[in-house]
Formats: sequence, structure tokens, C-alpha cells
Amino acid sequence: MLCNNVIESMGIADLGCSSGPNSLSVISEIMDTVEAANRLLGRRLVSEFRVFLNDLYSNDFNNIFMSLPAFYDRLKEEKGLEFESCFILGAPGSFYGRLFPTNSLHFVHSSSSLHWLSQVPAGLESNALKRLNKGKLYISKSSPQSVVDAYLLQFRNDFSLFIKSRSRELVAGGRMVLSFMGRSSTDPTTENSCYQWELLAQAIMSLAREGRIEEEKLDSFNAPYYAPCAEEIKDEIQKEGSFTIDRLEAFEIDWDGGAVTDIHTPHGKLSVGRRVAKAIRAVVESMLESHFGIEPDVMDDLFIRYGDIVGTHLSKSRTKYFNLVMALTKKW
Amino acid sequence: MLCNNVIESMGIADLGCSSGPNSLSVISEIMDTVEAANRLLGRRLVSEFRVFLNDLYSNDFNNIFMSLPAFYDRLKEEKGLEFESCFILGAPGSFYGRLFPTNSLHFVHSSSSLHWLSQVPAGLESNALKRLNKGKLYISKSSPQSVVDAYLLQFRNDFSLFIKSRSRELVAGGRMVLSFMGRSSTDPTTENSCYQWELLAQAIMSLAREGRIEEEKLDSFNAPYYAPCAEEIKDEIQKEGSFTIDRLEAFEIDWDGGAVTDIHTPHGKLSVGRRVAKAIRAVVESMLESHFGIEPDVMDDLFIRYGDIVGTHLSKSRTKYFNLVMALTKKW
Repeated sequence: MLCNNVIESMGIADLGCSSGPNSLSVISEIMDTVEAANRLLGRRLVSEFRVFLNDLYSNDFNNIFMSLPAFYDRLKEEKGLEFESCFILGAPGSFYGRLFPTNSLHFVHSSSSLHWLSQVPAGLESNALKRLNKGKLYISKSSPQSVVDAYLLQFRNDFSLFIKSRSRELVAGGRMVLSFMGRSSTDPTTENSCYQWELLAQAIMSLAREGRIEEEKLDSFNAPYYAPCAEEIKDEIQKEGSFTIDRLEAFEIDWDGGAVTDIHTPHGKLSVGRRVAKAIRAVVESMLESHFGIEPDVMDDLFIRYGDIVGTHLSKSRTKYFNLVMALTKKW
Repeated sequence: MLCNNVIESMGIADLGCSSGPNSLSVISEIMDTVEAANRLLGRRLVSEFRVFLNDLYSNDFNNIFMSLPAFYDRLKEEKGLEFESCFILGAPGSFYGRLFPTNSLHFVHSSSSLHWLSQVPAGLESNALKRLNKGKLYISKSSPQSVVDAYLLQFRNDFSLFIKSRSRELVAGGRMVLSFMGRSSTDPTTENSCYQWELLAQAIMSLAREGRIEEEKLDSFNAPYYAPCAEEIKDEIQKEGSFTIDRLEAFEIDWDGGAVTDIHTPHGKLSVGRRVAKAIRAVVESMLESHFGIEPDVMDDLFIRYGDIVGTHLSKSRTKYFNLVMALTKKW
């Protein structure tokens, strides 16, 4: 994109930037890439960067904004970029809908966000009349077809709205790099799609059996999450029609992030299980808290139990996450 | 501006938006004004609004962002504006310097912010070798000329940088409406310029005499504040050269916001004093806290004492704030 165009003012958006020490790292990488292209072509390709950090309205933007002065200093030191050439802005709102003016962006990035749906699929909400997915948190081998259908429909609606919105916001020739959880097979009950939820449901169920969590609460919870397969993604992109898929690849990620531990020792099993439990807890605790109303000590027990279950599972079957990554170009 | 141009995408910035129930009210008013112009001319003058909310990095943007969904709903209800035509973004940073891309704004607003300097004037910082402004918090009748000069120099540097930065960011023909504290006379020790600080210094001094605040701390504090006169403002705008001043007006504001109270009764004196003390406390408490390290109970006493001093003062002399408001146009 940089080699074929002169970009006066480059619009860049990170969708689902979250809030933490790595919120700005993708922006750094993008700047590095532009700098490398500058060197390659021997001229300055971009005069001005407009960088938009997006996440939900309730994201902690204060934390990110407080880290900006140090970030600007680093840009200046490392890349010789003047403060005046890079403007970092917060763009709060849901990416399932419009966030930016028409034709204002050149590059859109989103990592680990698009597997989150805009809502629990219709018919599976906590106040639905019928409990269609009893004892489960997500699609499971035992889920009825209606549950699978509801999830797929919600994903189709959300993802197509995402693509349509970005299509309006990106200039012709603009690019998009998306990375999120998916699955390796068209079967939505395949292990790398849903097994982390399956085991979490087991841990909750074991506490429910002891009367420490209401079983009804488990029956009425369904995660606003969907791990699509490549075909489902391609379908929506082709239906919308304004993007070409330059690349669509997948890579596996260990549940525990790939730390080197021999899982076949009792200690190894325990420590792998704990690491996975910590990572999953960081992601789902607030959701469980608001739905189940779990007390802190029960929450602690839940994730100790979950860690044990995960350790035992992984010592028998090395299930991994299946991450999809794709590069798209907005057609001219 | 709206009558003479078709504006495809209108860039609006509120500089020093703060964070509270009225943070978005100026945006509402701007939308109302555009709507009124639409009706007057019988066509839609602006297709898309880009609204930038600016304040320092440490401002509570989370609070503003959480109020956006309700604000968008209201825009839709009251003005029939689709969500897709108004994009509200956070633009953290100091307005004494660049905040936005070149030629990206059509209208800049700033209220009650530009009387704050970017820093304590050089030579008057808390770590300066010599205490030039002993017993005072701001310019006072007893301040040496060097203090007055330091304040004026800091104002000139800051305000000219503000004008220069906005000049780059506004399109030709773009407008700016600025409102902030000033003074009625060229004499910087005139009462409506500095008397609220004078009385606050008296209250601090009375606590220092009782050993409850260190007097040295008062000697080493100077507020990063300046109330310019109209001439000082005009000077900087004309020196920079890219704006015409369409209007420059002043209005007086009662220290207590103009509530109807008979100050010549003991009760009236007390209640006016208290209201002023509350308003000033909301503005300066965090500054005093970080410089003086005052304990909460001493802080309470300080503002009770300040309220008494203010009440007594106002019962004799009805000092008011002098607020300047100006409308500028970026030259073609």
C-alpha cells in the first residue's frame, strides 16, 4: 500500500485495543513498518499519522491516555518522529457498526477481539423462556442444532456488519489485518473451537452439585463468543463484496501460551493447568461475576478446580487454540 | 461559516472539555446551531460531524465515554441525527501545542481553560533558588515587577503557541470561540484579575501563623494562572497574523455565580462566602494538596476560613470576575 501511493495523512485504527501494557505495541509495529518502507524507497511516504484506538465505551481509556506522553517521547527518540506528525485519539464504541468518517482510514487492525459477539445469540439470552443449552456455556457436542444455528446466525449478523462498516470507512486500496479465535473444521463442536468452555462448564457444574453455585445460572448462561471456521468468514466477506482476501492463514496456540513444561509430571500438570486457568480467568471473570453473582472465595475455588480439570485434560490430549489471521484489501 | 460553504465533514474541537455532567453540552449547542442553519437555508449543510474532546492526558475521559451512548440516543431522538453522521473522539494532550492534523478543523471552542498556563512561570517554580513572591499565590499589589514580567512572559509564550497550533489545524475560514478569565485594566494587580488569589493567600497565611501550614510552602507556590487584558490577547493574535478578531467582548460574573442573596445580613455574608469557597475549592484543591501536602482536616479549615474572608470582603466591595469572550476567523 505504501509503495503504490503517497499518503499525506494516514488513518490507522486498532479495533479492540483493550487497556494495558501492550495496548500501544501494535501502533509501534505499524510505525516500524512505515519506517522500513521509507528506508526501502528512500523517501518519507507518510507525512502525518492519525491513530485511532478503539474499544467499548467501558474500556479503561484513562490508563492508555496516561501512557501517551512516554509513548510520544519514545516515537521521537527511536524514530525521529516529531510529536506533530502523529495524533493518537480515542474512538470509543462497538466495532459492530460505524466508528469513523467515510473514507478516512488506510489501515485497520484488530487482534483477539472479533471472536466476541455483539450480544448473546437471540433465543439464548439469560431471560429466554426456554433453556436450550442446559449445563453448557457455549456450543458443545450435546447442544441441540438450534443452539448451533443461533450462534452461527449471530456471528453472520455481527461479522457482516463489521465488514460493511469498515468498507465505508476505509479508502479504496486500504488494508485490514484481522486476527481472532477460530476453528479448524466446519464442525462447530470440534475441540479447538469450544473445549475451553466445555471444561469451564464442568468446573461450574461440580460447584453446582455442592450447592455453591446455582445450576439454573449455568443453564441460563451462554457466552457471547463464536469461533468461526475459514469458510464462514470467507462467505461473509464475499457476500459483502468490497474486500479481496489477500491471505487467510491459521496458527495454533498452546492453551498455556507455549511455556516449556513437561505436562507428564504431577507438578507439570498442575502448573500448566494453573496458567491456563489464570489466562481464562482474566478474560471471563467479569462476565461470570455479573451473571452468576459468585462470591470471591467461590470464584477462587472455581478456577482452582478449573485448573485441575484443564491439567488433567491436557496431560491426555494436547488441545490447542486455532487462531485465524487474514489480510484484506478494499477494492478500488 | 455554514452559510457560505458546503462542509462535507465538519471537524469540531472542544479544548479543555473537562469531565462532568456538562462536558457534552457545548457539543449539543453546536449541533443545535447547525440544525437552525439547516432550517434557515432549507438544506442539510453538514453531512458528517467529527467531534474531538480535548483535555490533559490525566483528565477522566472514561466518565465522558460512558455517557456517550445516552448522548448518541439523544442526538437521534431530538435532532434525527443518525449515529453514523456524528463521531465523537477523545483527543488527549495539551492545547499548548499541536493536537490535530493540518487543516482538519472547522470550529474550535474553549471555555474556562486558557487562563491556565502550561506551567508555573519560569523563575517562580517551587524549586527556584529565590522566593520572589513571598506570602502570595499569584500577582499581587506587593509583588515585585519581576513577578509580573515572569507571568506575562509565560502567558505570551503559551498563548502564541496556542494560536499558532490552531492556525495549522483550522481550515481557511474556520472559526474559533474562546472564553476565559481576564481583567478589565492593563494593570495586572487590578482587583478583578487577582483578588480571589489574594484572599486565598490570606487564609493560608492565617493557618501558617498557627503553625498548621508551613509558611515556606506558601512562599514557594505560584499558581499557573494568568488573567490577561484584551490588549495582551490582541497583541498575540495580531503578531501571529493568521486570524481576524470578529468580536472581543467581556462580561462580569459574580464570584458566587450570581445567586440572589442579601450579603448585608450576617447569614447572607456567610452563605455567599461559603458558595465562593466551594467553587474555588473545586478548582484549586488538587493543586494545593500536591504542593502543600495539606491534611484533609486542615483543608476543610482552610476553606471555612477562606469563606469567611470572602464573605467579609464581598460585603464591603462587590468584586467580580471579568470574563473575556472572543470570536476569531482563520484568514483565507
